[in-house]
Amino acid sequence: MIKLTLFALFLSSGILAQNDSIFIRKIYDEALLKGKSHEDLRSLCKDVGARISGSAAAEMAVYWSEAKMKSYKFDKVYLQEIKVPHWERGTKENAWIKGSNGLLIKVKILALGGSIGTNGKLEGEIIEFASLEDLKNSSEASVTGKIVFVNQPMDAAQIATFRAYGGCYPVRNGSAVEAAKKGAIGVVIRSLAMPIDNHPHTGGMHYEDDVPKIPAAALSTSDCEMLSAQLKKEKLRFVLDMDCLSLPDETSYNIIGEITGSENPNEIITFGGHIDSWDTGEGAHDDGAGVIHSLEALRILKELKYKPKHTLRVVFFMNEENGNMGGQTYATWSKGKGEIQVAALESDSGGFSPRGFNTNGNDQQLKLAQSFAPLFEPYFVNQFEKGYGGVDIGPLKESFENIPLFGFAVDSQRYFDFHHSEEDVFENVNKRELELGCAAIASFVYLLDKYL
Amino acid sequence: MIKLTLFALFLSSGILAQNDSIFIRKIYDEALLKGKSHEDLRSLCKDVGARISGSAAAEMAVYWSEAKMKSYKFDKVYLQEIKVPHWERGTKENAWIKGSNGLLIKVKILALGGSIGTNGKLEGEIIEFASLEDLKNSSEASVTGKIVFVNQPMDAAQIATFRAYGGCYPVRNGSAVEAAKKGAIGVVIRSLAMPIDNHPHTGGMHYEDDVPKIPAAALSTSDCEMLSAQLKKEKLRFVLDMDCLSLPDETSYNIIGEITGSENPNEIITFGGHIDSWDTGEGAHDDGAGVIHSLEALRILKELKYKPKHTLRVVFFMNEENGNMGGQTYATWSKGKGEIQVAALESDSGGFSPRGFNTNGNDQQLKLAQSFAPLFEPYFVNQFEKGYGGVDIGPLKESFENIPLFGFAVDSQRYFDFHHSEEDVFENVNKRELELGCAAIASFVYLLDKYL
Repeated sequence: MIKLTLFALFLSSGILAQNDSIFIRKIYDEALLKGKSHEDLRSLCKDVGARISGSAAAEMAVYWSEAKMKSYKFDKVYLQEIKVPHWERGTKENAWIKGSNGLLIKVKILALGGSIGTNGKLEGEIIEFASLEDLKNSSEASVTGKIVFVNQPMDAAQIATFRAYGGCYPVRNGSAVEAAKKGAIGVVIRSLAMPIDNHPHTGGMHYEDDVPKIPAAALSTSDCEMLSAQLKKEKLRFVLDMDCLSLPDETSYNIIGEITGSENPNEIITFGGHIDSWDTGEGAHDDGAGVIHSLEALRILKELKYKPKHTLRVVFFMNEENGNMGGQTYATWSKGKGEIQVAALESDSGGFSPRGFNTNGNDQQLKLAQSFAPLFEPYFVNQFEKGYGGVDIGPLKESFENIPLFGFAVDSQRYFDFHHSEEDVFENVNKRELELGCAAIASFVYLLDKYL
Repeated sequence: MIKLTLFALFLSSGILAQNDSIFIRKIYDEALLKGKSHEDLRSLCKDVGARISGSAAAEMAVYWSEAKMKSYKFDKVYLQEIKVPHWERGTKENAWIKGSNGLLIKVKILALGGSIGTNGKLEGEIIEFASLEDLKNSSEASVTGKIVFVNQPMDAAQIATFRAYGGCYPVRNGSAVEAAKKGAIGVVIRSLAMPIDNHPHTGGMHYEDDVPKIPAAALSTSDCEMLSAQLKKEKLRFVLDMDCLSLPDETSYNIIGEITGSENPNEIITFGGHIDSWDTGEGAHDDGAGVIHSLEALRILKELKYKPKHTLRVVFFMNEENGNMGGQTYATWSKGKGEIQVAALESDSGGFSPRGFNTNGNDQQLKLAQSFAPLFEPYFVNQFEKGYGGVDIGPLKESFENIPLFGFAVDSQRYFDFHHSEEDVFENVNKRELELGCAAIASFVYLLDKYL
């Protein structure tokens, strides 16, 4: 604590070494002129592809990640074994809207991650609720035996799209439970997407032990608009046909690479993203960009021959999307080894233009980050505020009380166009925006190492 | 001046009316929840299309713009006649690389705007220069009778992409003159594009009266890499076949819409973008976004029943890309009418996430803009710096000495992926990013009106 305060004072008193500004410029030059991030992301997206926990593709992603880290000759590269859930989408995923006079419309759906299948055709009257709250307030009689449609949109008036996402997260996560409590036989939700688009967006959901499990799927926002309009005219039925299923847990791995600290090798600065993705698209923004940001940041620091005081450790966490077993195992393992985690940083908001670094740390830790701001000014990175770290690094806070967690903030206006959908592909990541993210993270990690 | 200072003091002393913050929130709600900008841009891009000065499409754009402004029931909507150049790309645009042993590669080119045609096949040895500077320093003997290839890349290390563009602008504008001075018969330049992509980017160039006119075209950056690599192996010839031509000047129009000032109707706040575009793609970012930003800003202020003190005037300038006759005519006309132009704002950097408002104004004018910053904080708009206004509003400075010119700044990392190419289409503009721009401009115009 005292150490932090002293350095914050030192920095804010304007004695920022000119060396820092020169070194950061070198970082940006390396990222923009000789960077590997764009090609590495291409390879992860195209040579591996989507990589949901427990899948063959996730195994390939582990293989890819270890080989890639070794190719960059970090001091140590190793795997950390974890157990992950194994859910599969199955071979079919069909849905139809059925009207009274022969109206039949096939609609695209994506089962929510973790949903049970329908065991053949599941058909019932569909009943719409404008929000999860409305569903909770409805009568059992109105819902029993029906398929529930929760048509709650993300709030476009929110400037921070993640806030709008947070507002709808309970819809995806909890609608199956809330609908089943009232006797529903299935649930379809409006995709958590900002635009009106024509592809569904999947994501995690949960069941509860004492509530019947019912199938749950996402509809595209444009199909939701159409369905809702049609429901104003007539009663409709909905047909679901999905054979997704949960299988026994699988063995998988976090992938770890590090440059050993020259002064305090047992004091760790952890930074990373998650290597798993949903099983649609290519996991390019979520979270291919985040793992590549971190990988490239460490590569750049090594390339520039930076000798860190602390051990700089990049972690590709497995299983952020549906279990967070990677994050939990990592925190427990590190604590068990007697390591000291001095700071952690996560990138899991997409590969967009950098905006800043937010932290859940205390005031002194926040002030330290804010004291870096002048060094980031030439790079248009200016947001250093109280905020959220990330899912993967979250468990570190339980094991290491004083650790500041930093979340890498980007311009996320486009994020929920792509998120958890077939559109989250390499082509939708801009090369420069990705590279600027790598440079920002390398610079921030460098400053943390130097001034923590 | 004194007026400005007083208001700046007033604002910076923290007495910003809460009303402003409430009104700005209403502006953003209107833009994000009930906005017309995305649909209006779609219509401009798809129902009109690319619209180079003097073309039938530009006439259609004038028709579209006037009708659109009238549909929004502004107090006045009118056209302002101007003369514009009329250049046409023609019906064919072919190019080949020819090697010594039968090597023949067809490459895509775009004639630079204003270039003469080749009058049939033009063939010659091609000679590469790494920069315009190298061409200037070369011997006449090495260039005479050849086709010059200026392969100068945009500097990816620049964080502000417009700076990198500025560095290469003379290449596009001046290579034909510099090459012809040394006896070249034609010139091809590396497209002013940030990525390595496979489509050429066009743009303006000039001839000089006492220098022979030679045809000039842009090659895609990927073709430039290929051509340059091949030139390291062997001498090559280049074949150009273009029938572009310049025709007599045409009559065209600026399109103007305004809400009359309630206190000072003769004091004008001008804001706008340019309605003309290059003749490839759809002019979506350049500058469809800018005219739609401005149109939507005025629509929002009217919709919210704001009664401005000054006359708020949106101008769709014609002919920014190759002459600036719209901007020049407008400034002269306004001065001639005895109007007082109190401020002008231009949006011509694409429809991306807003960053701020830069100004070429004096310190007091800059301070006034900076005093607005707290009101923009919730919207992540935080750049209020000395900077450039815009091409269209530039001439106002000559007619109105004290006018501050404001340039709307956005996150332009992706701009030079699209700029002046077939990729500058509606689909590459993000709805939310566009809407946030409209709201930012409406808010800034509102504050200017209130505090100027």
